[in-house]
Amino acid sequence: MIEARTLSGFNDKLPNEAILKEYTTNLFREIFKSFGFMPIETPHLEYADVLIKQGSEEIQKELYRFRDNGNRDVALRFDLTVPFARFAIQHKNELSMPFRRYSIGNVFRGERAQKGRYREFTQCDFDIIGTKSGSSDAEIIEVIDLCFKALKIDNFQISINNRKIMNGYFRYLELESEIESILRVVDKLDKIGVEKVKEELEAIGISGSKCDLIMEFISLKGYGLKFFENLSRFKGLDSELDLGIEELRELNSTICAADVRNAYYDLSIARGLGYYTGLVYETKLLDFHSLGSLCSGGRYDNLTQNFSKESYPGVGASIGIDRLVFALLEMKTKIEDQSSISLMIAPMSAQAIEKAHKVASYLRKNGVQTEIYPEPAKIKKQLSFANKRGIKYVILLGEDELKSESFTLKNLEDSSQKSITSLDELVDSLR
Amino acid sequence: MIEARTLSGFNDKLPNEAILKEYTTNLFREIFKSFGFMPIETPHLEYADVLIKQGSEEIQKELYRFRDNGNRDVALRFDLTVPFARFAIQHKNELSMPFRRYSIGNVFRGERAQKGRYREFTQCDFDIIGTKSGSSDAEIIEVIDLCFKALKIDNFQISINNRKIMNGYFRYLELESEIESILRVVDKLDKIGVEKVKEELEAIGISGSKCDLIMEFISLKGYGLKFFENLSRFKGLDSELDLGIEELRELNSTICAADVRNAYYDLSIARGLGYYTGLVYETKLLDFHSLGSLCSGGRYDNLTQNFSKESYPGVGASIGIDRLVFALLEMKTKIEDQSSISLMIAPMSAQAIEKAHKVASYLRKNGVQTEIYPEPAKIKKQLSFANKRGIKYVILLGEDELKSESFTLKNLEDSSQKSITSLDELVDSLR
Repeated sequence: MIEARTLSGFNDKLPNEAILKEYTTNLFREIFKSFGFMPIETPHLEYADVLIKQGSEEIQKELYRFRDNGNRDVALRFDLTVPFARFAIQHKNELSMPFRRYSIGNVFRGERAQKGRYREFTQCDFDIIGTKSGSSDAEIIEVIDLCFKALKIDNFQISINNRKIMNGYFRYLELESEIESILRVVDKLDKIGVEKVKEELEAIGISGSKCDLIMEFISLKGYGLKFFENLSRFKGLDSELDLGIEELRELNSTICAADVRNAYYDLSIARGLGYYTGLVYETKLLDFHSLGSLCSGGRYDNLTQNFSKESYPGVGASIGIDRLVFALLEMKTKIEDQSSISLMIAPMSAQAIEKAHKVASYLRKNGVQTEIYPEPAKIKKQLSFANKRGIKYVILLGEDELKSESFTLKNLEDSSQKSITSLDELVDSLR
Repeated sequence: MIEARTLSGFNDKLPNEAILKEYTTNLFREIFKSFGFMPIETPHLEYADVLIKQGSEEIQKELYRFRDNGNRDVALRFDLTVPFARFAIQHKNELSMPFRRYSIGNVFRGERAQKGRYREFTQCDFDIIGTKSGSSDAEIIEVIDLCFKALKIDNFQISINNRKIMNGYFRYLELESEIESILRVVDKLDKIGVEKVKEELEAIGISGSKCDLIMEFISLKGYGLKFFENLSRFKGLDSELDLGIEELRELNSTICAADVRNAYYDLSIARGLGYYTGLVYETKLLDFHSLGSLCSGGRYDNLTQNFSKESYPGVGASIGIDRLVFALLEMKTKIEDQSSISLMIAPMSAQAIEKAHKVASYLRKNGVQTEIYPEPAKIKKQLSFANKRGIKYVILLGEDELKSESFTLKNLEDSSQKSITSLDELVDSLR
């Protein structure tokens, strides 16, 4: 006998969670399509060398990497971005640029399993490659905004920054060679707090006075114009910094034209990953601060550089579907699906099964979601099942019903009962 | 520099294929829901012992099995049925029986890669567990029938058999202990032909005269009542055989009541897998015979026996999505999606980007799928992109359009052009 169990960090999804996940991803797909994004898929398993060069050291440690039966060095993908870079180069002659894609799929990271952190989880990525335009940057923010709005989540915040601003300021501080390490420390601000960040900055050799300047700089945040007013005093210190400010300003005008109201600017948003080159962002639910960012990303203009000399600049974001579904479950999100009415047919005898299938087939053709209780079990058992399933209507098929064309339609919500004399009348009375 | 490549037997899906896959699985989900099936998910990676005991020897050889970083013996799932048996036992207290589930996901088999055979492929499974009723058997056949009809495929055939008929007849021939081996040979009939099957039967020790009887028996096939007439001469030889015939007859009446017209009965349908106990079936597209079965399954009343003494009898089917999408591509299936009209906004200058985002946002809110060309590129380049993407309408945003509220709407299909003076008029003229 084998124990029925899953691996630590790997989880089954029961219907309540899987239904909400399907609902969410369907909404997102409709939004992606409305912007002209197209779906693509890449395998779960790749040659290890395709994945490892792009991942941070941490990610390499977490990789599910092994030798396959043909002794190939293979690994399960840890995100959907690196395989997309591989995909773009491999299929460049089949894609028209600019190319907008979306992908929804599972990724694997062997990190220490903890609450809300899984070793297998679902990401939903959307990217635009083949253009460096600010229009694309804006489009990604607009999509994020619409995704959260579609779920009727109001209390969310898209926190935006631009790596160029950071690079420029750190260059001005004569810390150019430490930029990557500084950003990795700054990225932890939210998790470890101001004091710890200061300590870690000092630990990597940043002097006290420069630390203070960095802390002051990254504390700059706010909505729209107010933020840009505060930021303007840093203008002129460095040309890349100025360019970053200009890009952010332009972004703000564009997304405002498209009705985005939840954009927030925050110079502490750094994103740990090395491949970002401009715009970066994170999205938080303000009522679920401890969940961290549910949608992050940015502009990566050199992502394909390990695969080809040809460069496909791009911008994209990744939504953490499992955390989002977790939040939706906590918020007790009810899915509105008024298009279907749920009904169960309860056969009272073996002879009723055939008629049950006939009636069910007719009802489904007319848009009624119809279940048949599969056995002529006791009526109490059948009704208790229907109640547990949250089914609204039950049709009893007993002896009398088999002889005539009539039915008894029970409404389980208000316990009312109604006699029906034809299938047409039945469909009408359900509408 | 790393070569951008995928593993042999692993494939990317470009948009043409991914769009068709999404369309297909969405249609199927709607059908599943209309019968009361609910989605569940299980991990791609499992403890190896959970998977191996149920798989045939062949499947064990093909398993992607390795030691994870914690030295656990793990494997990628090779189907969605065995993990479902594990799931049913693990979550038995959270499920109300009978339980109808569906799952769409990827599975992995390290078999020799060949045309149309992949090492990673997508299955779409639906099952009813917790009941031995013939009503459930019929329901699965009805779902298969509706799935193929929904794709507007007419020329398909669901070939049905019942293991009890086979068991009974082989017992009558005093070949009870050879049943499993005989079924495995018979299962190859379609691939290797009559003569080879005879040879292989003789090779496992079946005498010539019994071989002839078996070959005659498994050649019995046909639609509905005619088939049952031919089958009736075998009645009375064995009680399990009689029960199998009775079950198949009852199934036929039930599915006929639900308007299934593509059911075919064929005693050569054996299904290689050991776990089937009653009904078995395969589904073929008659115009794509070489693709083999696109949807197979059956009743498995002992599937959970390796995990628990509690038995959850079940019946289910598995659709091979990749082969189905392959056939749809060959049939040049066009997706009808009349709900969205595709339009591209072509900005003629950097100044037009902001307005482009404003107009696009308005159009999408009104149900128009709208792409923005992300850069103010030359008009020829932008129109050529729109043509490649199959976009019907283009709005040009030049100097004049920025000053006024007017637009020029180009129809790329008939090359007509129209002047529009407001956003409302634009939406109206697209309807």
